[in-house]
Amino acid sequence: MADRKILILAEGRFGVLDSKTATCVIRYAPDEVVAVLDSRTAGGTTDQVLGFGPALPIVATLEEGLARGPDTFLIGVAPRGGRLPEAWRAMVVAALEAGLEVVSGLHTFLGDDPELAAIAARTGARITDLRRVPDDLPVASRKAAGVDATVVLTVGTDCNVGKMTASVELAAAARRMGFAAAFAPTGQTGLFLGGKGLVVDRVIADFIAGAAETIVLDNAPGQDFVFVEGQGSLLHPGYSGVTLGLIHGSQPDAMILVHQPTRLRTMNDEIEIMPLPDWVELHERMAGYLKPAPVVGVAINGYDLSETAAREWAARITSETGLAAVDPVKFGAEPLVEAILEAEHAGARP
Amino acid sequence: MADRKILILAEGRFGVLDSKTATCVIRYAPDEVVAVLDSRTAGGTTDQVLGFGPALPIVATLEEGLARGPDTFLIGVAPRGGRLPEAWRAMVVAALEAGLEVVSGLHTFLGDDPELAAIAARTGARITDLRRVPDDLPVASRKAAGVDATVVLTVGTDCNVGKMTASVELAAAARRMGFAAAFAPTGQTGLFLGGKGLVVDRVIADFIAGAAETIVLDNAPGQDFVFVEGQGSLLHPGYSGVTLGLIHGSQPDAMILVHQPTRLRTMNDEIEIMPLPDWVELHERMAGYLKPAPVVGVAINGYDLSETAAREWAARITSETGLAAVDPVKFGAEPLVEAILEAEHAGARP
Repeated sequence: MADRKILILAEGRFGVLDSKTATCVIRYAPDEVVAVLDSRTAGGTTDQVLGFGPALPIVATLEEGLARGPDTFLIGVAPRGGRLPEAWRAMVVAALEAGLEVVSGLHTFLGDDPELAAIAARTGARITDLRRVPDDLPVASRKAAGVDATVVLTVGTDCNVGKMTASVELAAAARRMGFAAAFAPTGQTGLFLGGKGLVVDRVIADFIAGAAETIVLDNAPGQDFVFVEGQGSLLHPGYSGVTLGLIHGSQPDAMILVHQPTRLRTMNDEIEIMPLPDWVELHERMAGYLKPAPVVGVAINGYDLSETAAREWAARITSETGLAAVDPVKFGAEPLVEAILEAEHAGARP
Repeated sequence: MADRKILILAEGRFGVLDSKTATCVIRYAPDEVVAVLDSRTAGGTTDQVLGFGPALPIVATLEEGLARGPDTFLIGVAPRGGRLPEAWRAMVVAALEAGLEVVSGLHTFLGDDPELAAIAARTGARITDLRRVPDDLPVASRKAAGVDATVVLTVGTDCNVGKMTASVELAAAARRMGFAAAFAPTGQTGLFLGGKGLVVDRVIADFIAGAAETIVLDNAPGQDFVFVEGQGSLLHPGYSGVTLGLIHGSQPDAMILVHQPTRLRTMNDEIEIMPLPDWVELHERMAGYLKPAPVVGVAINGYDLSETAAREWAARITSETGLAAVDPVKFGAEPLVEAILEAEHAGARP
């Protein structure tokens, strides 16, 4: 992924949570981003909107973006349902005409669109549909339980709460601690950032768990840890099936619960988020029917918190749950990796 | 669906549970079946293998089957993973050459196969892929909770345990009791038998619950009851995601738990099946986070039980769970419909 020059489309929606692909790419690959396209926040810089990272320009039109010399046009917002809004089609057309690689995480495959495919064929531009998945996935059968690596799944109290970010931070912390650790992406943003994975919410429903199993088996060799990016939430009205399939397919040894302390109700459906001890128990129960897996720590999404507030929330969550808690973006995920190691040692005792 | 003359392919696998599509079509549309193709049990009749229904011939070859005058060739076994075994391709080719409609519930769409499509185009034969689903399904958002009809979902202690059969029997019993009742199929067999539905395990994972929601909204108008066919099991290592998505998408008012008393371990994965009260509690809990829905009765799969044994099991299950229990195939599902009505009245009390 090195050496890309990325123009990110976040039209009308650029923001920490509203454009999570854009946010995560700017967080983890800032040197590769040349500009963000969003007419709503145009004129400002990305750090003003996100509250972190370098001051990358936000432009209002594709033409301004092209003037920054990109070689990649990334669709950095995921509309609910994942289809290409008609308003964006002209931009994709222009990007392909300019020879840029267009990278999309939409459910609608741009490469299957006759008009877009014809332009790409003519200009030599590449279309990469991140959600394209293999068609030979297995039905899961608990094979992931057999790997030597410690498999850790992130789970969350809502969708769009920071499971990918927590997984990336966990892998980075484990590496800083001297371990061999893989980040195993299960969503389009994680896959764009790199790693062996596939977009689990895109697979045919019968193969959700099989996809998770495949990802674990692909990543495990040579690793001490595989950090599997979780998806959705066990109580999300639309996505809970994906979440449970990931749990049963990846057969984790431990889980990290991701939570945004200031989020009291779920984003899309406005259901009250239940207390963390209930979430811990729910996940341990649903995993534990097939393989015991403790929730060993809480990763705090503190994008809207000061360092002081994030520390206070961590202390409160530890008091409430008895678990390690940290904002991994602000402070690193080392305490969570240590909690995983402690749980392993405790479990290994006779 | 009237007036079809169906030859059912169950090659090498004809049996009550091994060829569940064949079994169910023979149970619910026996007048439309002209023969079963299975070289392993050929020479006998279907009642000898299934223990119920008319004595339909079992033939060893496609030629013998074609001699019975079919107009429809139904692939009546679902191999794990849902792909077309190479050995069956020649039979499908011959059936299409003979002008039969080929109906398939496989994940691999026969209509997309260039060779098969070309033959069909030449002979005028039709290919129906039951698993083909619409590509404009929504992400679920609890809309199914708003319908006037009473929505009842069948859930089970394992996959392939009789959820479709129980749902068909529930709808039939409700109609006998004078209610307007729809059977809402979510699998290929149910869809072949008739009704408004779609094959939920085929949809893209993000839209499992959305598919269930769509099915409920399509079936509800004018009905007192919608009986939604459940899929998989909440603890199936491969299919649990589909099961949870169906629960959260269909937003049932009540659930019926389907169980085979003589099955002590799951079929594919050999996990011990936990006690029924735990299953009741698990389902009520997972549904109840989003909408309270009691499990009000147990449908017994008693295909391997005498009437006496089925009654004894029903009494034992009622004693164990406090719930109505009946083998709906042997005795009708009326007691379960009554239990649903009682629960509704209890819930309606101030």
